[in-house]
Amino acid sequence: MKKIKRKDFIKKTSLVIGAGATGVLTSCGKKEEKDSASIHTREKLEWKMVTTWPPHFPIMGEGADRFAKEVETMSDGQLKIHVYGGGELIPPFETFDAVSQGMAEMGHSSAYYWAGKAQATQFFPGVPFGMNPQESNAWLYYGGGLELWRELYSKFNLIPFPAGNTGAQMGGWFNKEINTIADIKGLKMRMPGIGGKVLTEAGGTTILSPAAEIYTNLERGVLDATEWVGPYHDYLMGFYKIAKYYYYPGWHEPSGGLELIINKSAYNQLSKSLQEIIKIAAKALNISMLSEFEKMNIEYLKKIKQEKSVEIKRYPDEVLRKLKEITKKVLSDITNKDEMSKRIYDSYSKFQKEIYDWSSLNRNY
Amino acid sequence: MKKIKRKDFIKKTSLVIGAGATGVLTSCGKKEEKDSASIHTREKLEWKMVTTWPPHFPIMGEGADRFAKEVETMSDGQLKIHVYGGGELIPPFETFDAVSQGMAEMGHSSAYYWAGKAQATQFFPGVPFGMNPQESNAWLYYGGGLELWRELYSKFNLIPFPAGNTGAQMGGWFNKEINTIADIKGLKMRMPGIGGKVLTEAGGTTILSPAAEIYTNLERGVLDATEWVGPYHDYLMGFYKIAKYYYYPGWHEPSGGLELIINKSAYNQLSKSLQEIIKIAAKALNISMLSEFEKMNIEYLKKIKQEKSVEIKRYPDEVLRKLKEITKKVLSDITNKDEMSKRIYDSYSKFQKEIYDWSSLNRNY
Repeated sequence: MKKIKRKDFIKKTSLVIGAGATGVLTSCGKKEEKDSASIHTREKLEWKMVTTWPPHFPIMGEGADRFAKEVETMSDGQLKIHVYGGGELIPPFETFDAVSQGMAEMGHSSAYYWAGKAQATQFFPGVPFGMNPQESNAWLYYGGGLELWRELYSKFNLIPFPAGNTGAQMGGWFNKEINTIADIKGLKMRMPGIGGKVLTEAGGTTILSPAAEIYTNLERGVLDATEWVGPYHDYLMGFYKIAKYYYYPGWHEPSGGLELIINKSAYNQLSKSLQEIIKIAAKALNISMLSEFEKMNIEYLKKIKQEKSVEIKRYPDEVLRKLKEITKKVLSDITNKDEMSKRIYDSYSKFQKEIYDWSSLNRNY
Repeated sequence: MKKIKRKDFIKKTSLVIGAGATGVLTSCGKKEEKDSASIHTREKLEWKMVTTWPPHFPIMGEGADRFAKEVETMSDGQLKIHVYGGGELIPPFETFDAVSQGMAEMGHSSAYYWAGKAQATQFFPGVPFGMNPQESNAWLYYGGGLELWRELYSKFNLIPFPAGNTGAQMGGWFNKEINTIADIKGLKMRMPGIGGKVLTEAGGTTILSPAAEIYTNLERGVLDATEWVGPYHDYLMGFYKIAKYYYYPGWHEPSGGLELIINKSAYNQLSKSLQEIIKIAAKALNISMLSEFEKMNIEYLKKIKQEKSVEIKRYPDEVLRKLKEITKKVLSDITNKDEMSKRIYDSYSKFQKEIYDWSSLNRNY
């Protein structure tokens, strides 16, 4: 494995600064003219995949690259996919629009980024205090989750596929100790998504610091805390050098599901064979990316444990209990306002309750 | 979903009675003559897949069928795979030999059955008190597990791929209560594999009852207890009608990994494209079969809970602690006698220890 330096990592990461998902689609990615009438079985195709990751970003970007190679090999060269990191062809957070409008045929990302398009997207990667990756996949593939996801994306002319998972995330890096829920009051923390809403509701201040500035902001006290991903990516960001505490569990993101999105019109023009290749390769990517995250998180958790200046701490039970209560309120606020969010979360939470009855039998020996 | 009756299920299951893995290979599956010089890219191939499952057996057999269809579609009809249930072409437990010798090009099974060929095979599906499926996959794909598996199978002219998982299994059906480790003494239980060795070491008697006879044996007291798979398959076997207790956790099989095996010479003759199709389809099968098991186990655990005559009980902590100790001894007996078992279990247990440090941060909120 190649060694990655913190500065290079942050430089890469800064390409995907928290621009949000509201960017306007520019026309920098010109759509190639194609004979849309029919694509014959052996005709060679070249597709573009845009991503929200920096080029060749550890695991996510590398996984997208691997997916492209696999598809090319499986199709015997018939479908060649050019993978673009965020900012290479279009800004990262225009991925959804670009694929929706056909400027690129595919995208790799997290559905979590598109809450500005449709609130309900954010339920697919994972929900605070929700299911773990294995449980989430059961919901997506066999519990009706993916059907709902397809329905939601259909009006954007997109077909989604589960395609990777960060695994459970960590609670984040703190320079203030969290002993009671009162310690959240006034806490300046970088935490996007539903988790961020929970934090705000608990009295904290969420600050959407661009990735490249989190380190400095944490160092200077502009931020008291930040969550990021898990041990591997967090280590590369260097937070262990300037934060006192590394909290767990990542209650806000117990599963970090990623997505492959495909322009529906482009997909429908493919032969059955290429459609199946993409579908199956996405499924394989889903398990291989999660497995790689697990492996790398093990390695980097060990490294972080060796840092004497960092204390790895568990959120107190009482704090987790309160955060869980607040999460219920935040989720109910979202689902009360949006019909599709309600349908999706109803399906998710019913499955969660039932799978816990099963999963809980298999733990703790 | 089609409704399956217990009698049909047992009839199906009886095809794979506990014949063990010691059967002699018969020559009922004649190898087709092929021009081995080269297989050109677009040449159509027909392959046989033998399995240890009854034809179209729920999830395992159905998954093998699905895999075959996916490969055929992905390869645009170039590789057609005929799937045979156990007993249709050869007896189920000759799968390993048949694929090794090229009578069939592929097999779907559990490595666990081939301990008679090489003791070390039984570490790949899962180890008592070992890793869960998500953790096991990380070990296999990124922790060196699959390389060791390939090395072990190489001398049998086989290439293995992880290809499915039952998820955590259940502890089993009992007509005697287990309150202390002393209650294992004299217990007549159907439990194969390493788990069975642990049971014997704890003073129990393992009885390898053919699948079709377990129900009757349990009813008549020939067996005091039996493990099987999980709620879905266990329900179909009807054990809830005649057993008083359903114990958890399935300490003996916290992960039930399945395998796709391919004749190495046959694989090497394939185009790069077909090789990749098989590799990726196996990976996809790995996650989809696990997801389906999770979903069905939820449904059937609910059904079992509705049966008032069955009590779902947890093994007492002290019993689990003792069984864990005995497991260590049994594993060390196996690894002391067999070099390859030692190498594989050393790799497995090192990874297990490390991933527990990580996984344990993400549980129990």
